[in-house]
Amino acid sequence: MRVQGRDWRTIWVLPPADSGFAGTAVEVIDQRWLPHRFETLRLHTPAQAAQAIADMTVRGAPLIGVTAAYGLALQTLQQADDTALAAAAALLKGARPTAVNLAWAVDRLLAQLLKMPVEARGPAAWRLAGELADADVATNAAIGRHGLALLQDLASLRPGRTLNLLTHCNAGWVATVDWGTALSPIYQAARQGLPLHVWVDETRPRNQGASLTAWELQQQGIPCTLIADNAGGHLMQHGQVDAVIVGCDRVTAQGDVCNKIGTYLKALAAHDNGVPFYVAMPISTLDRTLQDGLREVPIEERSPHEVTHLRGLAADGRETEIRLVPEGTAAANPAFDVTPARLVTALITERGVVPATVQGIRSLETPS
Amino acid sequence: MRVQGRDWRTIWVLPPADSGFAGTAVEVIDQRWLPHRFETLRLHTPAQAAQAIADMTVRGAPLIGVTAAYGLALQTLQQADDTALAAAAALLKGARPTAVNLAWAVDRLLAQLLKMPVEARGPAAWRLAGELADADVATNAAIGRHGLALLQDLASLRPGRTLNLLTHCNAGWVATVDWGTALSPIYQAARQGLPLHVWVDETRPRNQGASLTAWELQQQGIPCTLIADNAGGHLMQHGQVDAVIVGCDRVTAQGDVCNKIGTYLKALAAHDNGVPFYVAMPISTLDRTLQDGLREVPIEERSPHEVTHLRGLAADGRETEIRLVPEGTAAANPAFDVTPARLVTALITERGVVPATVQGIRSLETPS
Repeated sequence: MRVQGRDWRTIWVLPPADSGFAGTAVEVIDQRWLPHRFETLRLHTPAQAAQAIADMTVRGAPLIGVTAAYGLALQTLQQADDTALAAAAALLKGARPTAVNLAWAVDRLLAQLLKMPVEARGPAAWRLAGELADADVATNAAIGRHGLALLQDLASLRPGRTLNLLTHCNAGWVATVDWGTALSPIYQAARQGLPLHVWVDETRPRNQGASLTAWELQQQGIPCTLIADNAGGHLMQHGQVDAVIVGCDRVTAQGDVCNKIGTYLKALAAHDNGVPFYVAMPISTLDRTLQDGLREVPIEERSPHEVTHLRGLAADGRETEIRLVPEGTAAANPAFDVTPARLVTALITERGVVPATVQGIRSLETPS
Repeated sequence: MRVQGRDWRTIWVLPPADSGFAGTAVEVIDQRWLPHRFETLRLHTPAQAAQAIADMTVRGAPLIGVTAAYGLALQTLQQADDTALAAAAALLKGARPTAVNLAWAVDRLLAQLLKMPVEARGPAAWRLAGELADADVATNAAIGRHGLALLQDLASLRPGRTLNLLTHCNAGWVATVDWGTALSPIYQAARQGLPLHVWVDETRPRNQGASLTAWELQQQGIPCTLIADNAGGHLMQHGQVDAVIVGCDRVTAQGDVCNKIGTYLKALAAHDNGVPFYVAMPISTLDRTLQDGLREVPIEERSPHEVTHLRGLAADGRETEIRLVPEGTAAANPAFDVTPARLVTALITERGVVPATVQGIRSLETPS
């Protein structure tokens, strides 16, 4: 997607020094400085890739998985024997222990490489990592196309009016290789010329809405307005939201949606005001082993520091962290919540839009 | 209430230089520096009182009204003729144009004083302002006693367990002369030895929960935990909230409650999880001229700056304002929302606990 008028992915391979599939390095958008600075970072070793994952230079489950896959490819530039690859894989998987996509991507790629003769592993690693990146882009583009149809239907009910959407957290292109999930339909609608405006929840405590979603939308030239997480209900009560679209971290077999903390509150308000509530869900996010999201999805409790401290630009232009409360103030920081399926209007997947029900989710098993 | 182990009100008269009711000055807790610094400020003139109201040295509708009344008393130290009093009244009323209590308190006191001979106005002004302050304390103490009974009932259903309450924004003693409204039952329960714990919504964008409510509770030794506004629904889903208690800015004749933005979202979550949702309401907050809160209560739209910037202590110990988003990011800042009466379990008033219905509110007209 566009940044300062130019098209980017969040991760790309630097031109190979020789012919074939192999790159010489990987470059990523350094998301630690967004929205205040747009910088890129070059990764030459699996250790640097692991570091980029650990310190959130890259973030978002799909992008983390792809970065780790490229981390294995970087290892093949040095040594590609079983021991070296297994060590790099362990390093990469340990960078963020809770990210499911990370372990999945690394394990799958490692297993494929170990079956090959050592001399074939380099080109194969670069090719497979590239395929993983392209598959993510294709999935998100498909989610966007299916979501676009929904938005066009909504817009047709309000001819001549701007469509007002609300989103929570960041399920945009910087959480993926490109397009994003919840924002993909919005980007596609904007390219189709559908007049729209997005309410962006700041998404405390980590403020991904304020720092990433608002930035993404502005870079694409899509009108958006930042709001406190408290404001969405009021806007819905007053007819100022036509639909809510969010991403998800995990969806159960019965359609319960685990997503960023606060999603449930917006789903309640949408339900209370007859506003459709859509969840953009790459099918890889489905966890068929779980049924009752409220009882079965473990919720990560993150550091209280994220609630009590905040980063931004001080008047002198320097990035500064401030403490909001006296030292020793206790804070709790559950990072996700579960929105029961009954509050979800539909799931937008790469295979189409389905209801958040056991049957709707089963229908995804037979690709249309 | 207690600060650093000593008992305070938010406003008090300095010892009179001579006998009688007249003070020589008024002192207030300077709330601009809470929670990081506890300071007091001495007011000698009506202009200083108006300034204290305008710059939020004092805040909270009841406290603003009392400060303005003392501002008129301060005027009598200089000149108490009709012209001087009317000019002081106009100055004080203009300090925060939207605060209803402010104009009400000033107009009432001014009318009373103008009926008296000039030489009687000084002692009368100090006495009447003092009565207004004492009446606020008595009202809030009564709300506390009625709310205490509710909390004792809830606690009796959970013998041996800590009662977990959730509150939004600051309806504590620093918004009043003493006791507060929503926090008054909590303070009284704590003094009765009821084991309790309070979840404190940080209350974006102005963070009154983080900066005032958490500070108040800590100073009284009441266990509390700060949370992002996004977290309350999740806590209710998991049985970690036994009741919600909030204050209010205005209540309509049918029981719709206008309060700090985000209150509605918590009321929805309470309703969805069978958690009682109580509103502490001094009867002065009732606006019998309004019925449908959603349609009729005007909602103040405050500066986007409150959403895009935040103050706190930097690592160097200095109070610093940071900007969260790039310059030019659009933000909306509706300051209040309306919780429909159907989501309110009961109103806690100084005359008892009543349902949020036309009949419940009518019953308040005949004091029990």
